[in-house]
Amino acid sequence: MDFDLPTALPVLARTPHALRALLAGLPAEWTDATEGPETWSPYDVLGHLIHGERTDWIARARIILAQGADRRFTPYDRFAQFRESQGKSLGDLLDEFAALRAENLATLEGWRLTDAQLALEGEHPAFGPVTLRQLLATWVAHDLGHVAQVARVMAKQYRDAVGPWRAYLPVLDR
Amino acid sequence: MDFDLPTALPVLARTPHALRALLAGLPAEWTDATEGPETWSPYDVLGHLIHGERTDWIARARIILAQGADRRFTPYDRFAQFRESQGKSLGDLLDEFAALRAENLATLEGWRLTDAQLALEGEHPAFGPVTLRQLLATWVAHDLGHVAQVARVMAKQYRDAVGPWRAYLPVLDR
Repeated sequence: MDFDLPTALPVLARTPHALRALLAGLPAEWTDATEGPETWSPYDVLGHLIHGERTDWIARARIILAQGADRRFTPYDRFAQFRESQGKSLGDLLDEFAALRAENLATLEGWRLTDAQLALEGEHPAFGPVTLRQLLATWVAHDLGHVAQVARVMAKQYRDAVGPWRAYLPVLDR
Repeated sequence: MDFDLPTALPVLARTPHALRALLAGLPAEWTDATEGPETWSPYDVLGHLIHGERTDWIARARIILAQGADRRFTPYDRFAQFRESQGKSLGDLLDEFAALRAENLATLEGWRLTDAQLALEGEHPAFGPVTLRQLLATWVAHDLGHVAQVARVMAKQYRDAVGPWRAYLPVLDR
């Protein structure tokens, strides 16, 4: 599928609602569960998504749109949530993510981006030149990857409890 | 995590809401998308979940609880949705799934299952003896596996659109 803003926006708008529907009010056994050492719980994933709303997607889009002399993005801090989520409940994180996402989508829609703007480039610290179109497509795929991760992490908590059915549930061994 | 009914029920209750939050009103490019031939779209997955509500989980639990002479389960029809979803919109399927799930959870809660009942066995057509506890844990993990699948199938539609970011998005190549 080619990237197209009117098709992409509704997915970005749904992510906070999907995560709230999946996670709000669940026992902590689910929301704090991980896939083992150095892997993330649903709670950690929410903090990571919040950090992206604050520092990544819109900030990088602004760098591209400005077309200044230095178009290099700040590297993403993949561990910021372990600091920034401290003292916050899962409900706090769901609210914060929803508010930031709504704000960022209002900014994005307000830009009324043209095809020419979507083709503008910034510089990714590892990949080099990337377009605004690729950045926005990545925002969508990144959301969906983390929704899939949250469901997978939860499913894995029952890897043993399902007994022989494990053979029919590939998600338990992904 | 050991299976425990009070911890499992809230997950089962959330699945229809999570899928509605993720999918309702999305362009068909997303909801009809697949991972290639012989793979399922989000629309197909919903039909599969509905078939499970009608014919599998509660029906199998009843066979186990009855402890009759023949405790063998009917094999699950993994292709029923291609027949049964015909003519239905995605919104119809979301409504149908939510209604059936609510009904089935009311049945399950009404049973007030004891540990002794959770240890009763039925006969799986492929695996042989399985307990009610394993069946119910599988119901939960099966839900979560399909939520992960829906998000993954959608993410993959942007496999090319993300450009070099594909290297950072393992969900695109799962």
